[in-house]
Amino acid sequence: MRPHTCLYVAYGLSLGLGLLCLVFVISWNSYWRGGFSWDASAQQFNWHPVLMVSGLVVLYGNAAVVYRLPFTWGQRKFTWKLVHAGLMLLALVLSILGLCAVFDFHRGLQIPDLYSLHSWVGICTVVTFAFQWVLGLAGFLLPCSPWWFRIILKPFHVWLGKAILILSLASCISGLNEALLLTLNGAEPYSSLPVQAKFANFLGVLIVAFGIIVFGILSKTKWERPETDENAYPLLGENIS
Amino acid sequence: MRPHTCLYVAYGLSLGLGLLCLVFVISWNSYWRGGFSWDASAQQFNWHPVLMVSGLVVLYGNAAVVYRLPFTWGQRKFTWKLVHAGLMLLALVLSILGLCAVFDFHRGLQIPDLYSLHSWVGICTVVTFAFQWVLGLAGFLLPCSPWWFRIILKPFHVWLGKAILILSLASCISGLNEALLLTLNGAEPYSSLPVQAKFANFLGVLIVAFGIIVFGILSKTKWERPETDENAYPLLGENIS
Repeated sequence: MRPHTCLYVAYGLSLGLGLLCLVFVISWNSYWRGGFSWDASAQQFNWHPVLMVSGLVVLYGNAAVVYRLPFTWGQRKFTWKLVHAGLMLLALVLSILGLCAVFDFHRGLQIPDLYSLHSWVGICTVVTFAFQWVLGLAGFLLPCSPWWFRIILKPFHVWLGKAILILSLASCISGLNEALLLTLNGAEPYSSLPVQAKFANFLGVLIVAFGIIVFGILSKTKWERPETDENAYPLLGENIS
Repeated sequence: MRPHTCLYVAYGLSLGLGLLCLVFVISWNSYWRGGFSWDASAQQFNWHPVLMVSGLVVLYGNAAVVYRLPFTWGQRKFTWKLVHAGLMLLALVLSILGLCAVFDFHRGLQIPDLYSLHSWVGICTVVTFAFQWVLGLAGFLLPCSPWWFRIILKPFHVWLGKAILILSLASCISGLNEALLLTLNGAEPYSSLPVQAKFANFLGVLIVAFGIIVFGILSKTKWERPETDENAYPLLGENIS
């Protein structure tokens, strides 16, 4: 077997599962939940799952593994730090828009904000993600960041990155479950497992599978980007971490 | 700072958070939800969160990190494999009893089984855990297990162990959220955030915090048990892994 074959298989699997998550979350909200708008209606709420799954799970997971791709190891690390930070910023913006969608919807229908455990875990996830992004920018991209700070920050950044992914998965699964419990009632309750329920439950399974594959890629130390001299001896403060 | 101080701080934190999870889940079900019985009533259901949080989260997390304790590194690995397997078996039995509690309760009230996303993720968690335990027993404890099989199995066992913890956290958070959404209604709905809701939401936050600390301990390669000659050259088929 060629070197890195397993890594590329795992990466391909994560890309495929991520794409399926997007297709499923958009289809679920388009076909069964009335589509999308931005007018404080239920159609505005529908942006919430789509933006959270796209930003906090799929884009976040892909941004987390960019350093693991062997074809990038010969290229300048600084370029890939910019790609990582850029994708993470996009993921963060999508997540914040996803929060705006649900807060607007709540205001329109006079529903209280932040009462469920899902919302507590969800808001912790986005706040921690924003904190991590700002700290990452200050520590790893600003040229004035001292070398010792980067060395201390790196293991914390890696650990917090994984913690955010765990928080994202817990938020998404509890949120999907909550949306189905609150909306599937009447003639076809959730407990009768109508087609929509099976479809959305399967979306939940896809989200968890994506997260577990991303964790697998992140956990394998031999798939980490090798530290070259360029990284070990910082030049213009851009190469460490 | 003494070597391993950070590890022992993290371990102490995980023990403290695990204990708090147990106190909170038992108190919630005793004080607000009518306590415990085994007669297909709501009091039988109350065993479900208690057994799942105890088995699938607290005991599982503690069993996962036993190899990381430096005071055990001078002792025979086989002894600690037995401790690991024994604690995991107890965690698995508690989880299966937790499933029996909810299935019995459903039968008593004619509620369908396995319709919600929580139940799908939860049943996947326990089935994967049982598979992992049997595979671990066959691979690492049975003397007839060949050396090459142990070497192939170890990284898979480590990855699947972390995946099960992620599944457990997603199951517990979605389950707690579901229980509160389905039972807190009437005069004091969940959305009015009564004391019970705050208490149970805080339990959810404790569970996530415990899981993230355990992940931190498991992810740090320098906190892994060093491979000694005893482990590298198997004697009586008991030392690899």
